[in-house]
Amino acid sequence: MARFFMAGTNILGGMAIMRGRDAEHVHVLRMRPGEDMIICDGQGTDYKCRLVRADKEQVEAEVIEVVPCPAEPSVKVTVLCGLPKGDKTEYIIQKCVEAGASEILFFNAKRCVAKPDMPEKKLERWQRISEEAAKQSGRGIIPHVGWAGEYADALNVAVHTDLALFMYETGEREKLDEVLNAHKDIQTAAIVTGPEGGFAEFEADLARMVGLHVCSMGERILRCETAPVVALTATMYATGNLS
Amino acid sequence: MARFFMAGTNILGGMAIMRGRDAEHVHVLRMRPGEDMIICDGQGTDYKCRLVRADKEQVEAEVIEVVPCPAEPSVKVTVLCGLPKGDKTEYIIQKCVEAGASEILFFNAKRCVAKPDMPEKKLERWQRISEEAAKQSGRGIIPHVGWAGEYADALNVAVHTDLALFMYETGEREKLDEVLNAHKDIQTAAIVTGPEGGFAEFEADLARMVGLHVCSMGERILRCETAPVVALTATMYATGNLS
Repeated sequence: MARFFMAGTNILGGMAIMRGRDAEHVHVLRMRPGEDMIICDGQGTDYKCRLVRADKEQVEAEVIEVVPCPAEPSVKVTVLCGLPKGDKTEYIIQKCVEAGASEILFFNAKRCVAKPDMPEKKLERWQRISEEAAKQSGRGIIPHVGWAGEYADALNVAVHTDLALFMYETGEREKLDEVLNAHKDIQTAAIVTGPEGGFAEFEADLARMVGLHVCSMGERILRCETAPVVALTATMYATGNLS
Repeated sequence: MARFFMAGTNILGGMAIMRGRDAEHVHVLRMRPGEDMIICDGQGTDYKCRLVRADKEQVEAEVIEVVPCPAEPSVKVTVLCGLPKGDKTEYIIQKCVEAGASEILFFNAKRCVAKPDMPEKKLERWQRISEEAAKQSGRGIIPHVGWAGEYADALNVAVHTDLALFMYETGEREKLDEVLNAHKDIQTAAIVTGPEGGFAEFEADLARMVGLHVCSMGERILRCETAPVVALTATMYATGNLS
């Protein structure tokens, strides 16, 4: 079923009035009166609506049912990634939104090669990728995508969640499944992954000191754009959000 | 540590002799005598070697230790995907090799838009992507990538594994985690996913009839290139191969 976020919509007396880009989109889809669509408020609530009238400028639809969006996971996961080069950021955003992330933030780490210059345009582009992926996968929110800042800023975000996971390739680590199985009832979590060159040792030490769980995901070395998706999928699976 | 597959290598009397493309690669990496490297036989065994002599044509290294490759999962998973369009095949290959697949096969399904013409060149290219990803992620095998044929051929591959999973978005389905939890001791598995347009209903019916587990992965709709990676990660996690 066609799915829209409510940015350009007002709900008034049981009717949804849609204008702007979304109204154009309904027009392009050649939707006819009587057809159903879902308008999501972007905060986890779906309005199931039946189209009454549509032209290029304005769409009117009757609200049939209001339900919590079934695609939203029970745990809010913030994915924090050391800024990678090129289009890997876009890949991470798209796949993590599909896999259920609530927020995706990038940060500058010791071994980042990409320049941490964040022009407004880039942030807007990231947010647009999130919106597209959220629509496509049926999410109830548009996950926020942003710039966390330096490594310490990222740690600061992570420590304020119920379970902060730090993915690391060497040294003393906990097993990801043991950590997740011991924290089944979390409401929030953070997943911290490194840039192309991985984390510096002092970064892993700092993470451990402030209470993050430094975890291994087995002996296979995952690319910097693969690790967040795999860790997020494991978290969703372990908390019952993948079935 | 630098990692090579044994294609161009002979092991003779405790010495590894490498020629061809891999010897050139050692030369390019400017490796010096005394440095360690791993030469993998591509069948799960790693030869830890110390470089004795290297030029562009030939590399000689002393075998120090022979061990099972620690990155190989305990379960051999064949990933079977309805052929998608464009570079999505390459994405699926790269990510599934990283995530631990043993074999990746594509097939023709009712709603495939991509043409199932398989020139030798394309298959070679796919296999090369698998080799690169296997090296990079430290795998002990180079997963075979190939063309399964029509949908019935793919089903035939799947039914000959210990646990055949069919990922489907609607209708009556089992929960992926319940199925996986009931099959912790499997040695082989298959994961079957659809092309862009998903599976036709009769394809899901057929899968069910021949004994595949038709599974949901929750309410989020995953892209055709995301679903195999997520399902494979869940399988690795559930069988203790992600920690």
